[in-house]
Amino acid sequence: MERTLWNHIQSIKKQSPLIHNITNYVVMNNTANALLAVGASPVMAHAKSEIKDMVNIADAVLINIGTLDEYWVESMLITAKTAHTLNTPWVLDPVGAGATPYRDDILQKLLQYRPTVIRGNASEILALAEFNTTTTKGVDSTVLSNDAVQAALDLVNKYGTVICISGATDIILNSSRQTYFVKNGHSMMTKVTGMGCTASALIAAFIAVIEDKTAATMAAMALLGIAGELSERQSTGPGSLQTNILDKLYAISETEFNGQLNVLKG
Amino acid sequence: MERTLWNHIQSIKKQSPLIHNITNYVVMNNTANALLAVGASPVMAHAKSEIKDMVNIADAVLINIGTLDEYWVESMLITAKTAHTLNTPWVLDPVGAGATPYRDDILQKLLQYRPTVIRGNASEILALAEFNTTTTKGVDSTVLSNDAVQAALDLVNKYGTVICISGATDIILNSSRQTYFVKNGHSMMTKVTGMGCTASALIAAFIAVIEDKTAATMAAMALLGIAGELSERQSTGPGSLQTNILDKLYAISETEFNGQLNVLKG
Amino acid sequence: MERTLWNHIQSIKKQSPLIHNITNYVVMNNTANALLAVGASPVMAHAKSEIKDMVNIADAVLINIGTLDEYWVESMLITAKTAHTLNTPWVLDPVGAGATPYRDDILQKLLQYRPTVIRGNASEILALAEFNTTTTKGVDSTVLSNDAVQAALDLVNKYGTVICISGATDIILNSSRQTYFVKNGHSMMTKVTGMGCTASALIAAFIAVIEDKTAATMAAMALLGIAGELSERQSTGPGSLQTNILDKLYAISETEFNGQLNVLKG
Repeated sequence: MERTLWNHIQSIKKQSPLIHNITNYVVMNNTANALLAVGASPVMAHAKSEIKDMVNIADAVLINIGTLDEYWVESMLITAKTAHTLNTPWVLDPVGAGATPYRDDILQKLLQYRPTVIRGNASEILALAEFNTTTTKGVDSTVLSNDAVQAALDLVNKYGTVICISGATDIILNSSRQTYFVKNGHSMMTKVTGMGCTASALIAAFIAVIEDKTAATMAAMALLGIAGELSERQSTGPGSLQTNILDKLYAISETEFNGQLNVLKG
Repeated sequence: MERTLWNHIQSIKKQSPLIHNITNYVVMNNTANALLAVGASPVMAHAKSEIKDMVNIADAVLINIGTLDEYWVESMLITAKTAHTLNTPWVLDPVGAGATPYRDDILQKLLQYRPTVIRGNASEILALAEFNTTTTKGVDSTVLSNDAVQAALDLVNKYGTVICISGATDIILNSSRQTYFVKNGHSMMTKVTGMGCTASALIAAFIAVIEDKTAATMAAMALLGIAGELSERQSTGPGSLQTNILDKLYAISETEFNGQLNVLKG
Repeated sequence: MERTLWNHIQSIKKQSPLIHNITNYVVMNNTANALLAVGASPVMAHAKSEIKDMVNIADAVLINIGTLDEYWVESMLITAKTAHTLNTPWVLDPVGAGATPYRDDILQKLLQYRPTVIRGNASEILALAEFNTTTTKGVDSTVLSNDAVQAALDLVNKYGTVICISGATDIILNSSRQTYFVKNGHSMMTKVTGMGCTASALIAAFIAVIEDKTAATMAAMALLGIAGELSERQSTGPGSLQTNILDKLYAISETEFNGQLNVLKG
């Protein structure tokens, strides 16, 4: 598996896929930089007057609802519908699912366009599956990832999507009833805003060039987790960690990647 | 006072308050990271369809008018009104007060909902109190902080708010007629965008968990100022200073904090 | 020429011009920090209710269409018209020209207000001149800069603007039929989002204080390129490069600048 995942990382650099992002204001700079660092080409656009044209030229799409409003929601729905129609792979990042009824309503509408991959923390995945067993505290998870596995399986069955429940261990599930665990990452990453959003953007880059969407998701999560682990050793806090992760995403070697890789099949 | 202020800093880490931010596009990433670094939980949301729900779950609220427009102003007014009704503490950052009539008009409307704390530079405080004695140059102060003290006292008397006039020396005033001076900070901080905005966000975090709003404001201003002073020693310019301040907010020790603390009662 | 360009850099620090920016969400933080680092005063505002007032107090204006939408386009048009009427120098950054018909339509409208300087990559300049000989891939150039020279000359003739075609070598043309080549910069800069946007903002700062708009454009491009070259030596990837460039823009010495300067007259 090491060889395959590393090859996937190289594929991005070779093919430089164009990733169209509708994402939140907080993380746009860091998301664009992370995509550039791994070799992808980011575009950020949201105007209703051009959004279809942008999706048309994109190799994959990310929709992150973090700072949604009524206008952006219209753009998100056009984007999801267009991606679905064109068979362009797309990632849904359900930031803050469960925090407000509005978010949950919009998410149900977006799900109709069958995201290729959904990445969220355990709280968000539970809310997305309309499990009423948790309370979201902001955008952080207050339940353990494995509590959300049943919710994820429901979503997989209903929408045929790949799900990544991110947390200390990331759990990846698909409609072939496979489960993978990615144990890479470092706890200080939770003190950098938008690490989850970055993960979702990287997944979009990987599903743009890799046919196997489960392996693509694993590669993205492992790459970011390993970049975080290695970077933390050179960081004195979350500020330098944010910077160092970009450097490591750009410069990571095969030896570094495979030396840290900690992925298990369930 | 050292012991009290340090304990306040520890309270944020223990209680991890949820801070709802309506702030400007320029500083959102850095603001979220600063809140995470001190141990708070940031949320950024502005949709009229959910803003009341967000304020409902927040422990404190920040309203920063930096990149306001007609839609965001409606959200700001709903947010301020909701916070006022729920008795949720909130901070007003009147970015660019005095620069345009539109800003001044909106600020007068926001004041009706009686912010718990207002933090601005001297120009902004003067404009907010409708003193016509200065001209704002962009978002930087062109008058000395102490010239704004009379304006601040007017605001304190009228709205019962705590005021922080930030500058080389921060001046904090309250309705008990107390005045405090925070002399921490470094001039290079003025070359990093959004340091004032970060200060306001940190005040929101402190007033979320500390009953004494004046002490909370002092703790926030002293913490950021000290983080700036200590970080500047390891920085080669404003780029590394921005990064290092996040690291220091995260990792500052009691010895470092108390060794630098420079707060006086007026 | 070294002496003149260095003097121009010093002029910004002395005069601290107020630069009004309508720019994209992705780069706002970095743009504001770059302007502060060179000694300018940035303002970011876009509300139709105040945009004329903001242009009124600005020494120069930047319009960058990166994340345009219907509302922002109205603000951009008011801003361009106001700057044109007031004879305030302004820079147009046609991000993603050629990517969608909407962008191209808006750009033609903006051109009517005769930008003082236009900076774009070769693809964008070709699209702006309505040359149908290229396809834009996202916001990156897919044609060589010198292929765009004829397109730039058409724009110069039609609008009397200074044009900077940025790339490995930046090509600067004006209506006096002069051509300059700025060969500074480093390829890793293409892995940092918004370096082109930063260049355009710095041009706005220079044209605010320098009468000769061609020399002002050269000074801005050379400064950013040299800051990039020098910073790359101390960077381990694009994350640290972004940070180090801000430090170098702030702290660059005359010896460093002139030692690297690589500008030719065509």
